[in-house]
Amino acid sequence: MQKPGGKVYLIGAGPGAADLITVRGARLLAQAEVVLHDALVTPEMLALCPQAVKISVGKRSGQRSAAQSQISQQILECAQHYSLVVRLKGGDPMLFGRADEELTAMEQAGIEYAIVPGITTAVAAAASACQPLTKRGIARSVAFFTSSTAPGETSDTRIPECDTLIQYMGGKEAALTAQRLLASGYQPDLPVVVIENCSRPNERILRLQLKELEDGLSDREGPVLVMIGEAMRSRFGQT
Amino acid sequence: MQKPGGKVYLIGAGPGAADLITVRGARLLAQAEVVLHDALVTPEMLALCPQAVKISVGKRSGQRSAAQSQISQQILECAQHYSLVVRLKGGDPMLFGRADEELTAMEQAGIEYAIVPGITTAVAAAASACQPLTKRGIARSVAFFTSSTAPGETSDTRIPECDTLIQYMGGKEAALTAQRLLASGYQPDLPVVVIENCSRPNERILRLQLKELEDGLSDREGPVLVMIGEAMRSRFGQT
Repeated sequence: MQKPGGKVYLIGAGPGAADLITVRGARLLAQAEVVLHDALVTPEMLALCPQAVKISVGKRSGQRSAAQSQISQQILECAQHYSLVVRLKGGDPMLFGRADEELTAMEQAGIEYAIVPGITTAVAAAASACQPLTKRGIARSVAFFTSSTAPGETSDTRIPECDTLIQYMGGKEAALTAQRLLASGYQPDLPVVVIENCSRPNERILRLQLKELEDGLSDREGPVLVMIGEAMRSRFGQT
Repeated sequence: MQKPGGKVYLIGAGPGAADLITVRGARLLAQAEVVLHDALVTPEMLALCPQAVKISVGKRSGQRSAAQSQISQQILECAQHYSLVVRLKGGDPMLFGRADEELTAMEQAGIEYAIVPGITTAVAAAASACQPLTKRGIARSVAFFTSSTAPGETSDTRIPECDTLIQYMGGKEAALTAQRLLASGYQPDLPVVVIENCSRPNERILRLQLKELEDGLSDREGPVLVMIGEAMRSRFGQT
């Protein structure tokens, strides 16, 4: 196969705020001819590439969205027509970003690519809440996990064993996580921090206890991250 | 207590490359009057703040270094004399960054602060190695952990249970991790990716199997990250 001329940059946009992308990512966005972006990428972020053709290949929980194979196909088509293509994903592309499918498609088509990491939501949420994920003598390991609702995968994910637990896309699934943790002996008053719309103007931070999480999170609209563990205990006495 | 005038920004520098800091972090560095930085922060990164007084408060594994309480004290002193203080840490400050001690010290002294997240080494290493940390049907959870060699803490950390395991500062401790995983039934041919000096000009990527990691990593000089799990299996047939 003849090698197409375009190079694809798989870039992490970070949690949402336009200045939480990396300097490298922002520079490439400003040079891109075309940007294929997720629905969760903010308009402020897309303002960094006014010159580019923008294609939403949005996937968002609970909404109809393009199948992953279609997205990969769109990337390949762009690489045939443009020399600098950006595939912009929320957070970091290598953590819950379905990068494997897109990398495999590009490799099979012989397309040159590079990956630019992004701020994954957990560390931005830790910064917003001023709660370190690790803490000397308290928390030395952190698990990042998600519950899958994809066809063909069971949703009864085992909960990882780590000092700090971070559930991505945890809005609907957090109650089940809390139930499982309580059933396996976790303390009912274990601190929990929930972040909605991390780093955005409508960011909300909720502090509660594990036993309260069991009842579920109502009234959540944006992307939600749930952080559980002793490291989440407030230094100011709440929770 | 009278509130001092200075504001302190606790900023994640990311893995090392100067353009893998966030746009927000770079902007604040360019405005800082004083920058207190770790030994692992690169000269290229410090070139982003030519105007600032630079103070190395370096801690580096195996070298003599300032005690954490001294570092916190230096931050407080800087906040009394300067209006814009940056505390620059490698990676992300909230993950294995000892942020808790520094935040507590600032809160007790009534000093205003904000936290700017950074690219944690694991996602930069995943980008360098082109190995997603999560993979559909293969890896849905990722643990970040470290073995402590701090006084008063035992080094016999239990290994977290997750699909992908990432050991930070894993140069010396990785052999022990491999021994424990093999003893608890992990497959000897499980893929391992080791990254040294991630994102820097002298970056090295080593691919091996869990049974080889048991013999230890010789000849490592820079900071080392060890990634273990089925998600590390190469798409090109190695390992």
